[in-house]
Amino acid sequence: MPQTTTRNLTVNFDRLRDDIQQLAAVGRHEDHGIYRMAFTDEDMEGRDWLRDQIESTELHYYRDGAANVFARTDPDSDQPTVIIGSHLDTVPAGGHLDGALGVLVGLECLRRIHEEGITTRYPLELVAFSDEEGRFGGPFGSQALCGELNPEGIYTAVDLNGIYLSEVMQQHGLDPMEALQARRSPDSVHAYLEVHIEQGPVLDNLHCSIGLVTGFTGLFKWFIRLKGKADHAGTTPMNMRTDALGGLSEFSTEIPRILEENGSDNSVATIGKIDLFPGTANTVPGEVEFSLDVRDPNVDILAELALAFRKALSAIARRRNLMFEFDILSELEPSPCHPEIYNTIKRAAEQMDLPYHEMPSGAVHDAQILSHFTRVGMIFVPSKDGRSHSPAEWTHWEDIETGANLALQSLLTIAEAE
Amino acid sequence: MPQTTTRNLTVNFDRLRDDIQQLAAVGRHEDHGIYRMAFTDEDMEGRDWLRDQIESTELHYYRDGAANVFARTDPDSDQPTVIIGSHLDTVPAGGHLDGALGVLVGLECLRRIHEEGITTRYPLELVAFSDEEGRFGGPFGSQALCGELNPEGIYTAVDLNGIYLSEVMQQHGLDPMEALQARRSPDSVHAYLEVHIEQGPVLDNLHCSIGLVTGFTGLFKWFIRLKGKADHAGTTPMNMRTDALGGLSEFSTEIPRILEENGSDNSVATIGKIDLFPGTANTVPGEVEFSLDVRDPNVDILAELALAFRKALSAIARRRNLMFEFDILSELEPSPCHPEIYNTIKRAAEQMDLPYHEMPSGAVHDAQILSHFTRVGMIFVPSKDGRSHSPAEWTHWEDIETGANLALQSLLTIAEAE
Repeated sequence: MPQTTTRNLTVNFDRLRDDIQQLAAVGRHEDHGIYRMAFTDEDMEGRDWLRDQIESTELHYYRDGAANVFARTDPDSDQPTVIIGSHLDTVPAGGHLDGALGVLVGLECLRRIHEEGITTRYPLELVAFSDEEGRFGGPFGSQALCGELNPEGIYTAVDLNGIYLSEVMQQHGLDPMEALQARRSPDSVHAYLEVHIEQGPVLDNLHCSIGLVTGFTGLFKWFIRLKGKADHAGTTPMNMRTDALGGLSEFSTEIPRILEENGSDNSVATIGKIDLFPGTANTVPGEVEFSLDVRDPNVDILAELALAFRKALSAIARRRNLMFEFDILSELEPSPCHPEIYNTIKRAAEQMDLPYHEMPSGAVHDAQILSHFTRVGMIFVPSKDGRSHSPAEWTHWEDIETGANLALQSLLTIAEAE
Repeated sequence: MPQTTTRNLTVNFDRLRDDIQQLAAVGRHEDHGIYRMAFTDEDMEGRDWLRDQIESTELHYYRDGAANVFARTDPDSDQPTVIIGSHLDTVPAGGHLDGALGVLVGLECLRRIHEEGITTRYPLELVAFSDEEGRFGGPFGSQALCGELNPEGIYTAVDLNGIYLSEVMQQHGLDPMEALQARRSPDSVHAYLEVHIEQGPVLDNLHCSIGLVTGFTGLFKWFIRLKGKADHAGTTPMNMRTDALGGLSEFSTEIPRILEENGSDNSVATIGKIDLFPGTANTVPGEVEFSLDVRDPNVDILAELALAFRKALSAIARRRNLMFEFDILSELEPSPCHPEIYNTIKRAAEQMDLPYHEMPSGAVHDAQILSHFTRVGMIFVPSKDGRSHSPAEWTHWEDIETGANLALQSLLTIAEAE
């Protein structure tokens, strides 16, 4: 009765919780969160801890050229594999679930399936990707697997403190150029599944344990400059000023209108960084520079928004006699999760009677890189108060258990358990 | 026919222009403006140059304990004096007229009056005040004359680079404590007159050579903090944000309304400095700190404005669920010019058929310090394009000549020439 067996299979939650707590101790600073930034000693310690866990099972352990850590079932099969995983690295002062949860849920799923002696048509792999947080730029490990790296990129990759990726990899006995060998053929991968905390407030607000990720938002990030005239704050009457901040303020208050008129419910826009010049209390600001970060999961809506924001800025600049220019800092195309994998997860949730919320991912994940390479599905669990990248990161244990069991059921279906 | 003589008396404009050009060479950096910051070698060189000019006349030269430079007529008279002057020090990379013009016009007035053998009922004094630009804090020289200094203030006065006033004074052979001796009795001063460039665009816009200063604007300068919640720019829907910048933007766009509803034509308000936290492009700003500089020449209006700004900020914070607090960085009461002196200047302008514009001073001047001590009058001449504190500072020679002749006529009347 294999169908019944897999239907009723659940994770060993006590073991999963222990794993989460054990890994949370690696790189933890008392009261200051977790410091497992990519390729630090603490990050390598985390990978070694994972290796020990894998080696304590009968799963096959290996590490690729990008230092991505793998476990797999049925190493002799030449069938493409279903990969489940996430990353172990953290931002500085990060939380204990961002990335780690997806890796540990994957580990638990593979262990349970192996323990039950279940054979899947497509072998299973667990992955812990390197540097998802982008200490050295892009998500390094998943880019390596998808063949998106090149030698120049590897040699010039540097962190905010001027430390080179190639340098720290060599310090840990790794050859940076071997990351190019980490590339997999798309034929060797049947699908990719990732569990991750939402890192936003939506599920917590809805009191919903499961987010079914429809896709990954695209974004554009602009660096905008408005130039007017710096004047003495005491001697220049209001009607003789060309105050650059006036332009920014007007634009900032128009953002909700622009999103409502041109965007979707999923559209967001943020001004997160501002520099005023000269920036003294008694001078009318003659110039302002600021960032604009706009996201939406639909490529056409994103293009509409870019047009609308440009029009709004041009009109404000014209009306206020300001000079307006902008540079595009980055652009990322939205990409959907694969409909087959998405529907598989959705059916599993329905069969398990789990309420779920369909939503896009607003943050970048390894799954987004993989979505250009293989069929991808992603499950979110709630972040308490939307907190993440912070020691305050937290997800209720029941939600973690629910998410892990949904991942297990989905994985079994995707891999066609017999 | 003394009345006719004084009525027709004009400055020797060629000599005044030569003086301006000679003094402009002291501390000038090629293409970078003038560097005669208080108590630098260049500033002392400027004072020495002025001493030489005074000593080349029959005027009495002296310097007080604050290193203010004086010339006076009739040193043996025990009548109170009419003082005319301004300052010689500049901001870094300053212009050649801010302060210098008022001193050199004063010098020229005393020279012409002396040359013509005119006796005034009240003796005349020229003054060049020390550190009007406030390198070491307040306008040092005029505060010394008005008795506003104390030993602690002198010993703790320090510039932005951590250099002490007392140190640099000693380097130039000056005893800092002697500045306390510079205090004059109010009985010893009949009135104070100052000519200055406007440092704003009003007269230049009106093509008007003369500004009759009605008084000095008061001001309040606040440091305001709005606190919301820092969130991920990608994962936090717009309706779940408490974006501190949203509050600032709304407040900033309300400033014109608040001034129109509660202020006068002379009211100005400026946000010149902003800090966002955490200040990264992909984070919703959880906190913003900014300066608010508000000025008006009427004390009641200024109080109205403070109330209106506080109400607006409170309402915005309440509506947007932000925490609002502010510190008062500085407050300065407005003070009017003295009506008798003001009317004397006004009548002189009318008798000379000079168009004039009545206006408050939005910047701080030595005359503002003196206004609490004696009867004060002030004459503005236009600043081309409102530029000041810049090498681009410029006033057409005709305007300087007109202003100097009005100062000469006003001075003769105030001092009751016979």
